[in-house]
Amino acid sequence: MSGKENYTAEIIELQRELQKLRDDFSENDNAFFLCSMAIIIFQAGAVRAKNTTNILIKNLLDSCIAVIGYWAIGWAFAYGSSSNSTVGLFIGHSQFFLAGATDYPKFFFQYVFAATSATIVSGAVAERSEFINYLTYCAIISTFVYPILTHWGWSTAGWMSRGISSGDIKTTYIDFAGAGVVHLCGGSISFVAALIIGPRIGRFSRDGQPAKPILGHSVPFAALGGFILMFGFLAFNGGSMADIVNAGDGKIVALAMINTILNGAFAAMTYLIIFKLTRGKWSLLLTINACLAGMVSACAACNKSEPWSTVFTGSGAGITYLLLSKLMLWLEIDDPLDAFAVHAGGGFWGLISATIIAHDGIVYAISDCVNHIHCKKSISQAFAQLGWQLICALAIIVWSCAIMTPIFVFLKKIGKLRVSPEVELNGLDLYKHGEDAYPYESYGHGWESGPEYQDILPQTRREIQIAISRKSTMLSDALRAVAAGRTPENINMLSNGQVQISENTWI
Amino acid sequence: MSGKENYTAEIIELQRELQKLRDDFSENDNAFFLCSMAIIIFQAGAVRAKNTTNILIKNLLDSCIAVIGYWAIGWAFAYGSSSNSTVGLFIGHSQFFLAGATDYPKFFFQYVFAATSATIVSGAVAERSEFINYLTYCAIISTFVYPILTHWGWSTAGWMSRGISSGDIKTTYIDFAGAGVVHLCGGSISFVAALIIGPRIGRFSRDGQPAKPILGHSVPFAALGGFILMFGFLAFNGGSMADIVNAGDGKIVALAMINTILNGAFAAMTYLIIFKLTRGKWSLLLTINACLAGMVSACAACNKSEPWSTVFTGSGAGITYLLLSKLMLWLEIDDPLDAFAVHAGGGFWGLISATIIAHDGIVYAISDCVNHIHCKKSISQAFAQLGWQLICALAIIVWSCAIMTPIFVFLKKIGKLRVSPEVELNGLDLYKHGEDAYPYESYGHGWESGPEYQDILPQTRREIQIAISRKSTMLSDALRAVAAGRTPENINMLSNGQVQISENTWI
Amino acid sequence: MSGKENYTAEIIELQRELQKLRDDFSENDNAFFLCSMAIIIFQAGAVRAKNTTNILIKNLLDSCIAVIGYWAIGWAFAYGSSSNSTVGLFIGHSQFFLAGATDYPKFFFQYVFAATSATIVSGAVAERSEFINYLTYCAIISTFVYPILTHWGWSTAGWMSRGISSGDIKTTYIDFAGAGVVHLCGGSISFVAALIIGPRIGRFSRDGQPAKPILGHSVPFAALGGFILMFGFLAFNGGSMADIVNAGDGKIVALAMINTILNGAFAAMTYLIIFKLTRGKWSLLLTINACLAGMVSACAACNKSEPWSTVFTGSGAGITYLLLSKLMLWLEIDDPLDAFAVHAGGGFWGLISATIIAHDGIVYAISDCVNHIHCKKSISQAFAQLGWQLICALAIIVWSCAIMTPIFVFLKKIGKLRVSPEVELNGLDLYKHGEDAYPYESYGHGWESGPEYQDILPQTRREIQIAISRKSTMLSDALRAVAAGRTPENINMLSNGQVQISENTWI
Repeated sequence: MSGKENYTAEIIELQRELQKLRDDFSENDNAFFLCSMAIIIFQAGAVRAKNTTNILIKNLLDSCIAVIGYWAIGWAFAYGSSSNSTVGLFIGHSQFFLAGATDYPKFFFQYVFAATSATIVSGAVAERSEFINYLTYCAIISTFVYPILTHWGWSTAGWMSRGISSGDIKTTYIDFAGAGVVHLCGGSISFVAALIIGPRIGRFSRDGQPAKPILGHSVPFAALGGFILMFGFLAFNGGSMADIVNAGDGKIVALAMINTILNGAFAAMTYLIIFKLTRGKWSLLLTINACLAGMVSACAACNKSEPWSTVFTGSGAGITYLLLSKLMLWLEIDDPLDAFAVHAGGGFWGLISATIIAHDGIVYAISDCVNHIHCKKSISQAFAQLGWQLICALAIIVWSCAIMTPIFVFLKKIGKLRVSPEVELNGLDLYKHGEDAYPYESYGHGWESGPEYQDILPQTRREIQIAISRKSTMLSDALRAVAAGRTPENINMLSNGQVQISENTWI
Repeated sequence: MSGKENYTAEIIELQRELQKLRDDFSENDNAFFLCSMAIIIFQAGAVRAKNTTNILIKNLLDSCIAVIGYWAIGWAFAYGSSSNSTVGLFIGHSQFFLAGATDYPKFFFQYVFAATSATIVSGAVAERSEFINYLTYCAIISTFVYPILTHWGWSTAGWMSRGISSGDIKTTYIDFAGAGVVHLCGGSISFVAALIIGPRIGRFSRDGQPAKPILGHSVPFAALGGFILMFGFLAFNGGSMADIVNAGDGKIVALAMINTILNGAFAAMTYLIIFKLTRGKWSLLLTINACLAGMVSACAACNKSEPWSTVFTGSGAGITYLLLSKLMLWLEIDDPLDAFAVHAGGGFWGLISATIIAHDGIVYAISDCVNHIHCKKSISQAFAQLGWQLICALAIIVWSCAIMTPIFVFLKKIGKLRVSPEVELNGLDLYKHGEDAYPYESYGHGWESGPEYQDILPQTRREIQIAISRKSTMLSDALRAVAAGRTPENINMLSNGQVQISENTWI
Repeated sequence: MSGKENYTAEIIELQRELQKLRDDFSENDNAFFLCSMAIIIFQAGAVRAKNTTNILIKNLLDSCIAVIGYWAIGWAFAYGSSSNSTVGLFIGHSQFFLAGATDYPKFFFQYVFAATSATIVSGAVAERSEFINYLTYCAIISTFVYPILTHWGWSTAGWMSRGISSGDIKTTYIDFAGAGVVHLCGGSISFVAALIIGPRIGRFSRDGQPAKPILGHSVPFAALGGFILMFGFLAFNGGSMADIVNAGDGKIVALAMINTILNGAFAAMTYLIIFKLTRGKWSLLLTINACLAGMVSACAACNKSEPWSTVFTGSGAGITYLLLSKLMLWLEIDDPLDAFAVHAGGGFWGLISATIIAHDGIVYAISDCVNHIHCKKSISQAFAQLGWQLICALAIIVWSCAIMTPIFVFLKKIGKLRVSPEVELNGLDLYKHGEDAYPYESYGHGWESGPEYQDILPQTRREIQIAISRKSTMLSDALRAVAAGRTPENINMLSNGQVQISENTWI
């Protein structure tokens, strides 16, 4: 091919091409958008038809606000540097508006995480939240709550990431893909939000009756969203985490994906079987939730677990989900999409499981002991890591709730947290957006527009039902008159052969 | 840049980066999930509303069971090695539970194929299958039937892949992306399954009337699924097959994609025009099916065909689909989603077409003869390959049917193949899953909840219709009494001015 | 690792692997399919239920016709070479049927663009266009109108791309991802098409009443399509443009994506706030349109703008969309999906904004002047570029309209442009395709099929409404008779206790 004197040029050329390829490849960060999109569909299917437009526009604005907020401020808090190393343990403060930032792919990736953690919360307050509440918490989570957590856990300067070092023991924060900083954060806030906003009208009765399920209007949408979410998790937990954690060994990427899907499968099967045994039905929607909880739990350590470990992590996540969703029912906290049970439950369990059954975890330490290898050191290290992980999880919960609780309480005080009962009963779509998700007049065929249908084809479903009811009432009135031996006083025969019934007999 | 002494280090660095990039890239195997997801939506739209939840959960479990099964057993049968080379012609038996396996991306890819071949079958038994039947055949196909076929056709040790060698002639199994081992396999099993389970109630009349189409409940879902499937096929037939067949020449990937879409386009246009000429309508759903059949046929040899060949392969696939779907009607076998005609038809035609019009096929051999180049050798080779390909196709059909037929028959014997007529008529969703796909009470607005609507707004569509019917009947009864000159005996005037009609006059 | 004598082999190996990886990577061009698919869903949701199948099949055929047309002819016009350099300024004419072409990924990418520009138009003529009109304009746009424009603007030989050179001044056509050749082209044709075909029945009243909105039947579909479109734009404007413009600097790809989403976010927020202030509602669908217009505007120069510039470009696009959609209302031109306002408006604004606020634009030139750096040269260059860009935009508009106007007029003359009022009122689906998007008989449960429901469960929604109307009329007639003191003449009591009413009293 060429003489040795050309090696330098060729190597430079190869490096250039490799760089170009890597840049092209960053397009794949788009895959993460799947998650945002999936949540949108999932949530749209899981609310009642009268609130569908509301949840859709809310999610659109989540994306818009999060990108503007994370670009302007969030990134700087999360990955900006700090001149003071003590301050730097807790917060960054440079590269506002991305000034001077060059790691655009990482920005993209983190932005989607930020939008996701905000979106999780909307599941918990769905069908009754004021619009201004959405805007407020989305802005605060994506510009402040989430960025600070990633600074703690994922930037090299953060205190959780640095951990403690003492002798042989060295702890750090184990969270490959956001089990803690994304899901536990969003899930914890969901709990607080659902608690403060209160249950939807009709969810829990006052007279000790069992809670009444409020069903979403479209199982296909909810299921489709769930399936795309699973697909999105694979992307999440697959390749691109290389941006955050230096992948090192190449197999990690594929391993992460296999662990993720196995986790989801074991969580789903565990839940499905328990549900079938206790309730006698094969439940779709709850099984999807369990599957998602399993995948959330995989986020913590899917890069450093063996596939067999998913039997433990996945099944545990399914059971955790089951228990927490029961707990919410028992507490009479109404979380329409089980955001708390899925995300906080799955995330927390994943963080713990990572210190038990992943590499270097307690199971491996015990195995070392059984084999008489570094027993004491392994055990100490493994339990210290578990302790640190618990501290980190606690910190995430406390931080998330400490920031958001006062905000929800304040919004409640000024009457901007929850819509009025009238709006809630009649649906948010028409009051707040003027856009019915399924406008009645856009269905049906022109064959129905002849004059004989004028009285049965008014503009909305509501009106058609009123019309039917009125017709019945009129006839009932007339019959009553006839039965009483009178000519029905409110009925007049018209010259065109129609029967007119005077207005005052109407409902 | 640097002195020559640094070349080694730089080259190592380049290799490392290349490896990392390749690993990241494996994320794209996710693209294959599109196919699974698309089938889900496609099938959901193609069944009646009352069976929608059933088909959705069935697909969720397909994915879960297939990943667990393929991880535990399937992979070992397909790509595990065998110490005995004769046994190795037929089955592998190492790397159970992925122990010792390292090719995770290939696992992922093959797992999706396995789930797909199982999912194809569910189209053929939709709307009447017992849930346990789904679970059974999915487990068997993904852990045994499909893995063995891939061992035969795609592992280097398999007998189909090895082919025969005799003098100048050397045959092999030509199947780039699963036309045979995925689609012909799934399609053949669909035929058997649909035959044994029998047609849906109302599909074929006993008195010689023409078959009555049973329409899916949502054309948009079916179409959306179809479109995503097309997109998924492109991913399928595009880049990542490099995992299976060493791509060698770089243009193959893009060529495969172009051939795939052209195949689909010609199949669709052929079908559309024939249908328009004979039936006078532009049919959407059947055209989508034809397009899919065209893309299935592209799976066999889209990597080694010229774009012009798609005129032949694609149009042929459209016609094959048309004929096979007519055949099924004539045989009175009810295959709700035309799984047999699309997948078995498209797959079989693709395998044959690959030996005719792809590179080294019969057309090229004849062209050689016309140009007096190696005529005899080319012709012998091309026809020998056709013969071997037919043997392989036959083997796939026989194997698939031979394993699955006894299982379906057995399930039928023990009454676990098909639901009862009552469940079938009333829909599987509420009986089996307790989850209506579109719960009536989740539609409508609160304006309808006033007291005047109590009698017209009961909980389900069924009940609202009963209410209307009853109201009509009551009034008819009353009129009848009036017409007979009697005071309607079953009508009482209440003090609140309402008319009460005694219960026994109700329907 | 190895001695220096092996460098050559290693470098060759590295190059080979890099090539393979690049080829694999081309699969990502699939991401562009997202846009086609998204438009499909978006449009399906935005029409009335009675025209849903029509718009779906139309989009299927768009894809099929465009790939066949672009493969056979379009590519040759766009990127084929020309032996005559003057002819070559305007059109290419080699590589018909891809003969001799090797850049398959670019073909794929351009094909999707071609299909997209044709699909844009269908939004403007939706719900009233003859099917043959779709087929005609799709074929012409994808094989001729769009390819010629790309030849002008994107092939190195085209006159727009070459621009003018005079002294220090050098202009070219700035359009990174099709703001002009795709969106302005499709949007301009949309205007012409909507004007010639005329508004839908009922859209504008003759008596000075305000225009009546005709709502799409499914906000979730429209919104889902819109979200996927946003995701698709990111792919569009992200990595793969490297095929067209040599990316050079690696950060461009990620920068393009960030600019695209920020553009969309600012356009959406601008529109949302204006709408909320003037109309008091948070509108979803129009906000999505504004967001799309913002992303369209990003296509022109997202590769060479700083993120802060999106405040200008994005907000401007939102306002442009707002004004143009008002203009269409004022002109009483009915563009059901606002194709003109979104695509022509966003595209044109993007082209202009690119010469104002992108690198080397007027803002930078003024900044140079303020800093006394090459003031005169910068200013001259920037304004010359603005002028050239305006000429190019004008050329795109004129070319697109000049070709398509006669075609639409001709189709109108021969009565093949628009369906009859009867078909339009009754919906295209059943007349043209025989496939109702939501067949009535595929809803409901078997519980409704008992004999007592026979009269209230006929086959279509239309029939059920007729039945209710008839029942009411019968009873009214009977009451009229009773009120007149007669035995209702048209009522007969049957032996089975039912009331029969003679046919002639029916509607």
